Parts: sequence; C-alpha cells; structure tokens
Amino acid sequence: MAKAITSRSEDYSQWYNDIVRKAGMADYSAVRGCMVIKPHGFAIWEKMQQQLDKMFKDTGHVNAYFPLFIPKSFLSKEAQHVDGFAKECAVVTHHRLMNAPDGSGVIVDPDAKLEEELIVRPTSETIIWNTYKDWIQSYRDLPLLINQWANVVRWELRTRLFLRTAEFLWQEGHTAHATKQEAIEETRLILDIYATFAEEFMAMPVIKGVKTANERFAGADDTYCIEALMQDGKALQAGTSHFLGQNFAKAFDVTFLNKENQQEHVWASSWGVSTRLVGGLIMTHSDDDGLVLPPKLAPTQVVIVPIPKPSPEINDAAETLMKELRAAGVSVKYDHDETKRPGFKFAEHEMQGVPVRVGIGMRDLEQGKLEIARRDTKEKSFVPKVGAATYIVNLMDEIQENLLQRAKNHRTENTRTAETMDDMVSILDGPGGFVSAHWDGTSETELAIKEQTKATIRCIPLDGRDEKGACILTGKPSAQRVLFARAY
Amino acid sequence: MAKAITSRSEDYSQWYNDIVRKAGMADYSAVRGCMVIKPHGFAIWEKMQQQLDKMFKDTGHVNAYFPLFIPKSFLSKEAQHVDGFAKECAVVTHHRLMNAPDGSGVIVDPDAKLEEELIVRPTSETIIWNTYKDWIQSYRDLPLLINQWANVVRWELRTRLFLRTAEFLWQEGHTAHATKQEAIEETRLILDIYATFAEEFMAMPVIKGVKTANERFAGADDTYCIEALMQDGKALQAGTSHFLGQNFAKAFDVTFLNKENQQEHVWASSWGVSTRLVGGLIMTHSDDDGLVLPPKLAPTQVVIVPIPKPSPEINDAAETLMKELRAAGVSVKYDHDETKRPGFKFAEHEMQGVPVRVGIGMRDLEQGKLEIARRDTKEKSFVPKVGAATYIVNLMDEIQENLLQRAKNHRTENTRTAETMDDMVSILDGPGGFVSAHWDGTSETELAIKEQTKATIRCIPLDGRDEKGACILTGKPSAQRVLFARAY
Repeated sequence: MAKAITSRSEDYSQWYNDIVRKAGMADYSAVRGCMVIKPHGFAIWEKMQQQLDKMFKDTGHVNAYFPLFIPKSFLSKEAQHVDGFAKECAVVTHHRLMNAPDGSGVIVDPDAKLEEELIVRPTSETIIWNTYKDWIQSYRDLPLLINQWANVVRWELRTRLFLRTAEFLWQEGHTAHATKQEAIEETRLILDIYATFAEEFMAMPVIKGVKTANERFAGADDTYCIEALMQDGKALQAGTSHFLGQNFAKAFDVTFLNKENQQEHVWASSWGVSTRLVGGLIMTHSDDDGLVLPPKLAPTQVVIVPIPKPSPEINDAAETLMKELRAAGVSVKYDHDETKRPGFKFAEHEMQGVPVRVGIGMRDLEQGKLEIARRDTKEKSFVPKVGAATYIVNLMDEIQENLLQRAKNHRTENTRTAETMDDMVSILDGPGGFVSAHWDGTSETELAIKEQTKATIRCIPLDGRDEKGACILTGKPSAQRVLFARAY
Repeated sequence: MAKAITSRSEDYSQWYNDIVRKAGMADYSAVRGCMVIKPHGFAIWEKMQQQLDKMFKDTGHVNAYFPLFIPKSFLSKEAQHVDGFAKECAVVTHHRLMNAPDGSGVIVDPDAKLEEELIVRPTSETIIWNTYKDWIQSYRDLPLLINQWANVVRWELRTRLFLRTAEFLWQEGHTAHATKQEAIEETRLILDIYATFAEEFMAMPVIKGVKTANERFAGADDTYCIEALMQDGKALQAGTSHFLGQNFAKAFDVTFLNKENQQEHVWASSWGVSTRLVGGLIMTHSDDDGLVLPPKLAPTQVVIVPIPKPSPEINDAAETLMKELRAAGVSVKYDHDETKRPGFKFAEHEMQGVPVRVGIGMRDLEQGKLEIARRDTKEKSFVPKVGAATYIVNLMDEIQENLLQRAKNHRTENTRTAETMDDMVSILDGPGGFVSAHWDGTSETELAIKEQTKATIRCIPLDGRDEKGACILTGKPSAQRVLFARAY
C-alpha cells in the first residue's frame, strides 16, 4: 500500500507537503528554494498550459520569447517597479569559470566581471518594453498582444512547493494599445479568461476583484485578480491582470504616431498565472487519501485494474473499453502490473488522483458488469459492460461538476460578514475564510487591520453591491464591502 | 512592398540575417548575445515542439522540470564534463539588490553574497543526476525516460540568431537504465526520432553518424548526431544523442539494486535539439524572396488574398474555402486588409514563407476559378473553385515532398570524395559541401586537418560502407570514410 499521509485535520500544512511528494508532484532540489517538478506534477501543468494557451490564442494573442536576463539599470527605469522588484533576486555578475590555480577545483574568473550586472527576470515588463520601443512606430503596429511561457526567479526566503519557490514557471502576457480604454478592456478580458479557466477547468471557484493600492503590482495603475478559498480557510491569489497605464511606455520612451498624426505614449497591460495554480488545485479538492483531480486536468482520466490479475478475458474486456474510451477522447491506462495487488494499486491511483477507476474481475465479467469507482466521492457502482464507456464519459462530467459545486459550497459556508473588529478576529481565529467587511479606503487602515489580524484585503469584488457602511476599524464611511482573509 | 533582402549569391551571411529579421523571426536584445524570438519565429518553434513532444511521448517519455541553477561544485563532479562546460557561463553570485547609499540608483547588496555560486544551466546532466540519486533505488525504478523543455545559457562570444546565442531554448532528455545495452538502444532510438523529424517535418535531409572523440559531448562515451548541409555548403549539427555510460551515475553515486540483488551504477543517455533547428530550416529552403517553409511546420499554411480588394462575392468564396480547408486540418488566413495592395501582400507572405497563396479576383471567380501560387517554386495555377480545397491539400504534400527532394539533390551534388589533401582543400575552398575522405582515426590527424582546412569531421556515418583506404593526411590505414565539412 502507498504510505499514508498526514490528515488535514491533524496538520493541513504537512498534509499538503505529503500529497505533493507522495503523489509524485514535486520535490525540493539541491538549490535553495528551487523545486523539481516531477512528471505527474508537470503533466498537470502541461494540461493547464494547453488550455490557457488555446484561450489566449482564441482571443488573438501570440507567443514570443524574451531574454532571461535583465540589465540591472532597466529595473530602475520605472519608479514603482524598482521598489517592488529590485530586491531579492538572482544577480549574475560574472561570465566565466576557471580552474583554481591551486588545483582545488573551479572558481569564478575575477577577470570575467560583467560591466553591468544582469538580473534573472523576476517579471519581464522592463526588457519587453525596451524591445517594444523598436517594434512600435505607428497606430498600425498596435495592438501588440503577446504572451510568453517562461521561468522566473524571485529569491523568496520562505518557500513552499508550487505556492512560493525561488524559481517558478508561468505565463506573462504583455500587451500594447493605442488607447487607455482598449488597454483596460484587455486587462478585463484576461481576468475573465482566468476566471473561466479556474472555474471550468480547475473546478476552483474564484472571486474577481481589484486590488487595493497596497497590494497592487509595482508599476500598475490597477491590478485585477482572481482569489480562491482553500480548504483550510486561507485565500490564494490565483492570477493577476494589470492595467499599466502609460507607466512603462514613459519609462522606456515608447511612443506611436496616432491617427491624428500625433506622438503619444502607448498604453499597456500585463498578466500572469503560474505553477502556483497547481498548489491551488491540490488545496481545493484533495483529501486524506491523496490528490483529487478534476477530469479536465487529469493526465490519466481513467485507470483500469484487473482483479485480482490479468487474464485473457479481463484483458479483452479492458482492451475493448480502452478503445471505446479513447475514441471518446478519454485518456485511459490499463494497470496490468502483476507484481502489485489490487489493493495496492487502488491506493496508488487514489493518491495520484485518477478521477475514475474501473475494476474488472472474472465474477463481475460473467455477469456482464464492471466495477466503477469515482475518486471524488469514493462511491462504487456496478455498471453493465455494454455502454460502460458512455457511462464513464457522463460520470466524468458529473465529477467535474461535483468538484466545482463542492468547492462553491465550501466557499459559501466560509464567507462571512463582519461588522466589528471583534467579529473579524473571531472569524479569522475560528473557522477562517473570507470576511466581507467595510473599510474606509485608506492604506493606513488596511495596514493597521493587517497588523492586528494578519489578514489582508484580498480584493474589492467587481460584483460587490453598493452598500454604504462604516469602516470596521475607524468607523469612517465606506461605499462597498471588501474581502479580507489570511492568505498564502 | 516589403523591403528587399540581400541575395544569397551576394552575401549568404547577410541574406540569413535579413531573412531572420524581415520575416519577423528574431532579433538581438539589449542583453549581449541574447535574442528575442519574435512571434513568427516562435510559432515555428512551437510547431517543432509539438511534433517532437508527441514523438517523445509516443515512445514512453514524460516531461519534468529541473532547476535553472546548478551549484558550482556540481560541475566539477564529472571530470570530462567540467572541462567542457565550466567555462563561459553565467554565474550568479548575489541574491539581493539595494538602493545605493548615495542615491545613484540600484546596486548589488554586498551582504547578499551566496555561499556557493550558482551557474545558469548550460545543460542539466549534473543537477538531474543529483536528483535521480533520490529517485532510483531498485531496477523497478528503471528505466527513467524524462525530457525537459527549457532555456539554457552558454556565454558565446560570437553569436548568430538561432544558430548560436548566449541563451537558447531546447529540449534535453535524460534517461536512466539498468543495462548498458538498453541505454545504447535509447540513444539510437532518439537519434532515429531526430532524423525522422528532420526529414519528414523539416524536409531537411540528415546524415546519422557518430562523433569522433574530439567532437564528443563532455562526459559522454559516445555522441551520435544528425548532420545537415546548408545551401552555402556548410554543415550544421542539428541534434545530438549521447550515450553517457555510467559516468554521471558514478559522479553522483547513483546506484540501484539489480534483479540479482546487487548494487550497480545506473546507465545513462542524454539528448537534445534546440532553436538552432529554426536556423537550419531557414538555411535549407529559403530563397532571395524570403522564407520558404515546409507545410508541416508553417504556422499559416494557406493565405487567401482578395484581388484587388474584398467584395461580398470574394468574401463568400474565401469563407467557403476556409471552411473546407479548416475541416481538412489546414491553417488558413484571409488577408482582407484594405489598406494594402495585393502586390504588397504577395511580397509580405512570400517573405514569411506561407506555402500556398490563393488569389481570388472577380474575373476568375466568374469563370469559377481561383489562382493558386506555391511558395517553393513560385508557380501559379488556375484551379476550379469546386475541389480547390482538395487540390490545396494535395499541393501541400507535393510542396513538402519537393522541398525534401530539392534539399536531398543539393546534398548529393555537394557531397564529394577526396583522396588527397589537395582534393579536400580545392573542394572546401571551391563549392564547399561534405567531403568524404579517409582518416587514420587519431585526434592528432583530425586536429591537423582542421588546422589546415578549417574543416572538422562532422561524423563517422552510421551507414558508411566498410572501405579500406589510406588517411588523406598521414597515409595510414583507414577502415571507413568519414565526413568532413566546414560547419556552423
């Protein structure tokens, strides 16, 4: 049997680590804070990539690739940006190694010092806007709708697999527009794509909102976000889309000749989601037996297990079912390894989150039936062999739907309103979750609340109702409730 | 009209640069030696990736992701490897920036020096074998068949877009096996995949061979390669597959318990192709009017141009044709931009290498015909509108086949035998190309020939006939001819 993992009720954080490692998702590496994404974890990220890439391309975006390195001076060009990103980062100072004169090994060649240090990109606005300068002359060159799939590095002190690592994988979109209106529309379009992806593919419900000034991307005029609620009542920022105004265009002097024949600075957006989504996926659905994956993102959607072991009849039935399932576009594996017992295999596939398991035993087969188990509820059914493929296809839809509904219910049950600071603290120290409360709109108040509660304003929800009220801390007037939570 | 490019006969090197830039493939960046891969170039790389990824997965490989950084000491662990790769590379020495005390900008924080420097991976054998140590205990854990799509950095002094840049994109496979035989079979399997990909998708014929000791990968027991011949008579190493023996297993102490219950070192292969293939594609097929792309790798396979401009009838005909082509899996665009004349569009699409152009004019339409032009030969035909989609699908097969045949003919015409050093020099200084000649098998002779001719042994062809002869330089006995060429 696969080794048991820590239960969620015992230690949620340890449960998470156990799942990530025992389901073969990722592991720490020899390099501080950097992870190795193992094949199973990477296969899930690939499914995410494929779907997002399709959604980006369907809306007119194209991919490109920009350099890994950013000249140090570039970071200083945008005043806000430098404060946000010129901090913990990987700095390349030399370009050569040499054998140590004393034969003790390899050392950095002191003669190979770079004139200007290079920073391993923490995000690519600066190098990209420096490039756009050459690409944009006239309104005819706009819009530029470019995305990049890349690795980035931020020298994080406290790391957690997928959620926060020094190096991570992501996509970063960088668009250039002729008008403010168009750039804002792009920012919102991408936010909608992210939300649709999260709900329809990850089965992870999200709140769309806008960040407060404190939580805004360094260099943005506005940061939109999708926020999800994890099982332990903590929030996860799952994706951000920034309206950058003309900030980077001004910093890198990117202008265009508009239709009225006047030089104008270009308007911009940038947006990204990362391998952090894999962490969000785990913490939204998984249980004490391991990973639970929505069928739409499961690398293997169905596994067939012979009970107790392969036989000509069982192999025939498995082959037939696989052929039918593959014809329906389902990814299926037949686990015919004779060195492992069914119970061991069941535990292993549960740990890895395979949505549907089909058991084929001789006795059931004689009765024309198969045993079908769903991972989300662990329910088993005996289903006629004829028509089983159709049953499974429908079952996968049902699982996808159930996971989303379950996560929505969890979020509904864990979204509470607070009218006082006492309310807020007792919610946060109790069940946790989202707290909807009035706030006076100032950074000072936001920081004071954070200081007292460790909760931040996750976002000002876009679908929030106008509702006059009094700030939970200062009593000053507020026009809308905002969402607080402790967050990853 | 798109600006003209330098002709190949005038200056091949400049022609190449012109194509890369004017077809929107790539450009240099603000970072020395690093390129920006522009959308059109990246779209071609994506098509390559998709196909290769499928071929790897169809043969049982899975993807994973390992850290960008390699601790400096890792490079020293394999004696050959350190000589090959601990040279020109990007060295990370610090992990923080700070504001300069004098307010002059951002500087490297001297207190944030790393205990051990990190190297931006030039290739990942060391970090991966250090990881495999934790993944492999028993023969049951083998084989490991893992591939990674990644960026790597080698601090090249002389760079050329796609062919040789400081940072480039590639895939690197790293496999682990229980037996020597199996590792060699894997190395050869991948070589065959590379050759098949080059010929069937890139329409670029290649010679499969093995490298001499001089040209071997640092740390390999044997390096297999595919070598292609460019239009200017220079060779291009297009992909390599290395049999690593137990070298990295020994360096990183990776052992496994074999079926006989004995500890044994693991056997290894590694293999890679890179964005360099895009350069090879350009130099195999393109002409003085711009890029020529094989249909199987063209991001846009067919472009439809209204002549002279869109009209309801022309739009209808275009829509119908697009629907039919898309149903056949063809990627097609309708260039209905009214601000550009047909002649300008023709030149633009030729520059970008779109394999098939369809012109739709009112007069032809009244006669039930379309004008179809193929990019490879620039021939035009008038084809009945009914059945045009089928005609185009067949035409694309014909173009794909013609490009391969043309390249094969070029290679045949430019592969010559030399019996003396005079022969060799006159071939190399004349038409160039591959020179098939006898060699005595020593590194000294190989280097002496290189010194005199600037040609290297590209490979010892795998399908070479046994043919006794005398070394072209030393007259010593030789058992097989090898292939010499000047190379990129």
